[in-house]
Amino acid sequence: MKRFIVIDETVNDLYGSQVAAYFKARGVKYKILHLPTTEENKSMTLVTSILEEVHKFGIDRRTEPIIAIGGGVCLDIAGLAASLYRRRTPYIRVPTTLLAYIDASVGAKTGVNFANCKNKLGSYIPPVATFLDRTFLCTLPRRHISNGMAEMLKMALMKHKGLFELLQKEGRSLLDSRFQLRIPENVHTDAASVSTRLAIETMLEELAPNLWEDDLDRLVDFGHIISPELEMKILPELLHGEAVNIDMAFMVYVAHERGFLTEEEKRLIIVCMQSLELPVWHSDCTLDLVQRSLTERLKHSGGLLRMPLPIALGKARIFNDIEDSIVCQAFKKWCDEHCETTMKPQ
Amino acid sequence: MKRFIVIDETVNDLYGSQVAAYFKARGVKYKILHLPTTEENKSMTLVTSILEEVHKFGIDRRTEPIIAIGGGVCLDIAGLAASLYRRRTPYIRVPTTLLAYIDASVGAKTGVNFANCKNKLGSYIPPVATFLDRTFLCTLPRRHISNGMAEMLKMALMKHKGLFELLQKEGRSLLDSRFQLRIPENVHTDAASVSTRLAIETMLEELAPNLWEDDLDRLVDFGHIISPELEMKILPELLHGEAVNIDMAFMVYVAHERGFLTEEEKRLIIVCMQSLELPVWHSDCTLDLVQRSLTERLKHSGGLLRMPLPIALGKARIFNDIEDSIVCQAFKKWCDEHCETTMKPQ
Ligand SMILES: NC(=O)c1ccc[n+]([C@@H]2O[C@H](COP(=O)([O-])OP(=O)(O)OC[C@H]3O[C@@H](n4cnc5c(N)ncnc54)[C@H](O)[C@@H]3O)[C@@H](O)[C@H]2O)c1
Ligand SMILES: NC(=O)c1ccc[n+]([C@@H]2O[C@H](COP(=O)([O-])OP(=O)(O)OC[C@H]3O[C@@H](n4cnc5c(N)ncnc54)[C@H](O)[C@@H]3O)[C@@H](O)[C@H]2O)c1
Ligand SMILES: [Zn+2]
Ligand SMILES: [Zn+2]
Repeated sequence: MKRFIVIDETVNDLYGSQVAAYFKARGVKYKILHLPTTEENKSMTLVTSILEEVHKFGIDRRTEPIIAIGGGVCLDIAGLAASLYRRRTPYIRVPTTLLAYIDASVGAKTGVNFANCKNKLGSYIPPVATFLDRTFLCTLPRRHISNGMAEMLKMALMKHKGLFELLQKEGRSLLDSRFQLRIPENVHTDAASVSTRLAIETMLEELAPNLWEDDLDRLVDFGHIISPELEMKILPELLHGEAVNIDMAFMVYVAHERGFLTEEEKRLIIVCMQSLELPVWHSDCTLDLVQRSLTERLKHSGGLLRMPLPIALGKARIFNDIEDSIVCQAFKKWCDEHCETTMKPQ
Repeated sequence: MKRFIVIDETVNDLYGSQVAAYFKARGVKYKILHLPTTEENKSMTLVTSILEEVHKFGIDRRTEPIIAIGGGVCLDIAGLAASLYRRRTPYIRVPTTLLAYIDASVGAKTGVNFANCKNKLGSYIPPVATFLDRTFLCTLPRRHISNGMAEMLKMALMKHKGLFELLQKEGRSLLDSRFQLRIPENVHTDAASVSTRLAIETMLEELAPNLWEDDLDRLVDFGHIISPELEMKILPELLHGEAVNIDMAFMVYVAHERGFLTEEEKRLIIVCMQSLELPVWHSDCTLDLVQRSLTERLKHSGGLLRMPLPIALGKARIFNDIEDSIVCQAFKKWCDEHCETTMKPQ
């Protein structure tokens, strides 16, 4: 039995010897390839170097899955390498960041950046398994915990008022505890287990019937309308979830402007975001960038805007008819209320 | 409406202006990218250059399929580029060689060579359509007509005695006429139409229920057991179909040695191959290479040999228990009967 493992460099420094010990103890012939799987390196070049090593090591394309251990970048790159090798080699995801745990662990997508565009190349090949182990998160920098909570908040705002209320109430302490269980909590009722389970379940509800994204009306696109361009523009300043949160914050203003959210609901959402230490505004997110992103989306979504917007706490719908004047008004208010009080993330 | 066309350089010299005229006449905004899509260039590098151009040109990932016009190499490379672009962009195959017409046009496979191995990277993404137009073949070099007929003969030997008899009787004149219709022949009964239709139909019968090659027992692997290594070893001396034919010729000796084919049946097959101007032996196809290929196959086929062998004219079965002594005996006879009389292909 042979196993080829692709692991993020930082994760390897922290857990590499444990991973090696695991395979040694089981008499498995293994190769651990540690790579600097950062957003800046997320390209075909890294995919190719994985493929060269896989080829040198030699695996049985049917029975010896490639194992990816790391954040979303590592899982996406290794997943694409596996998709390509011998036209499709099985792979296993082991997420080690909160973002990867609740988001990149679900679904079939792999990908790398190309021509300065996020995830422009990739495949829809699901992993044969995903191993979820939250203890990895205890070494994750606080900022990256917040980062993952942005995607959690996305699912809460789109689909689950209960999850939103949990994040309002327990979000800060989840951030402090890095989602680790404090004995003697109950795994079925503690906030860390419930919130991650709800985030994954709601995500699965959306992704499972639409694994290949044939349906373009997707609630999970919330926060992902203007963030891709923002994220790539100022890379590496913003993390993915931070860019997503800035996008969501703006969209909350749009929803308010259209009359879907009350002033109080809008305020509660922004306060919750801030309590999770997520940025709610950014000077590089200009009106021009917003309008360009919306035009781009129109072009790539079969001529319809398909903009997911909250219409109440934990409830959302897809809209195609958001007028430019609403966008401009919302943008103005958003800037007025935040441009002076918001600090850039360090 | 926009169309991005990837076309083989030689095909572009011959038909490029007609292709351009077609799109111009229909007011389609198009970009024709002509590339030297040869077996030696069949790599990720060429895939990346296609992707860069596609990205610059800009297409709607849902409604504007990439069109590939050329031989199997061009279709495979462009198909892989399309598979990767935005995780899956539709593409259309327009085969212009006989081999691509009857073989690379069918099925879901795309691919490029990697680390000196044939089609080591790729995807299983079927085209949205394949346009079959045999008039392209009238400019194809005679050697490439033979080349395609090897894959036709493969299907005949595995599954269709009638097709084998047609190739015995009409093969030579099909080669002479380059599969063009001589007016006033009947499209439903002429040899060119019948033989290509039968080849494609039998191929589809095998591929359709096994599009992702989950079933490892595949009659279409006949001729593809030792040829991949042979082909890559002496690239570019042998064409794909020529290497396949050398493999098939050897396997016919194995089948004879095992008592499945009579001496006369073996002779008829070899004579037919020769009448199609296909090589039936090659000095670089050594016993060592044969044995290495079989060992490789064993490793990559879940521990079973799964060797397709003819058991009569137009009938075949999969065998897992071909002894080394049979292989050696067959190899000796094969060499004795051909090493002096066979010329290397020019
Ligand atoms: N495929 C999908 O469905 C999907 C979904 C969401 C996001 N993504 C992708 O995921 C990427 C973002 O993922 P990410 O936020 O995990 O980023 P990441 O992979 O860059 O990891 C973030 C950082 O955390 C470090 N790290 C990882 N695990 C650690 C641990 N346990 N302890 C300490 N440090 C650790 C890493 O070294 C890295 O510096 C983006 O490229 C995004 O496109 C993909
Ligand atoms: N995807 C599949 O299912 C599949 C099946 C079989 C073969 N293949 C692949 O196909 C490749 C072989 O294909 P091929 O034999 O078509 O080779 P090819 O693509 O190299 O074309 C052969 C030659 O013919 C020229 N040519 C093409 N059309 C012409 C025309 N109409 N007139 C004059 N010249 C023309 C080309 O320029 C080239 O020099 C191999 O790489 C093989 O792996 C793929
Ligand atoms: Zn996201
Ligand atoms: Zn072939």
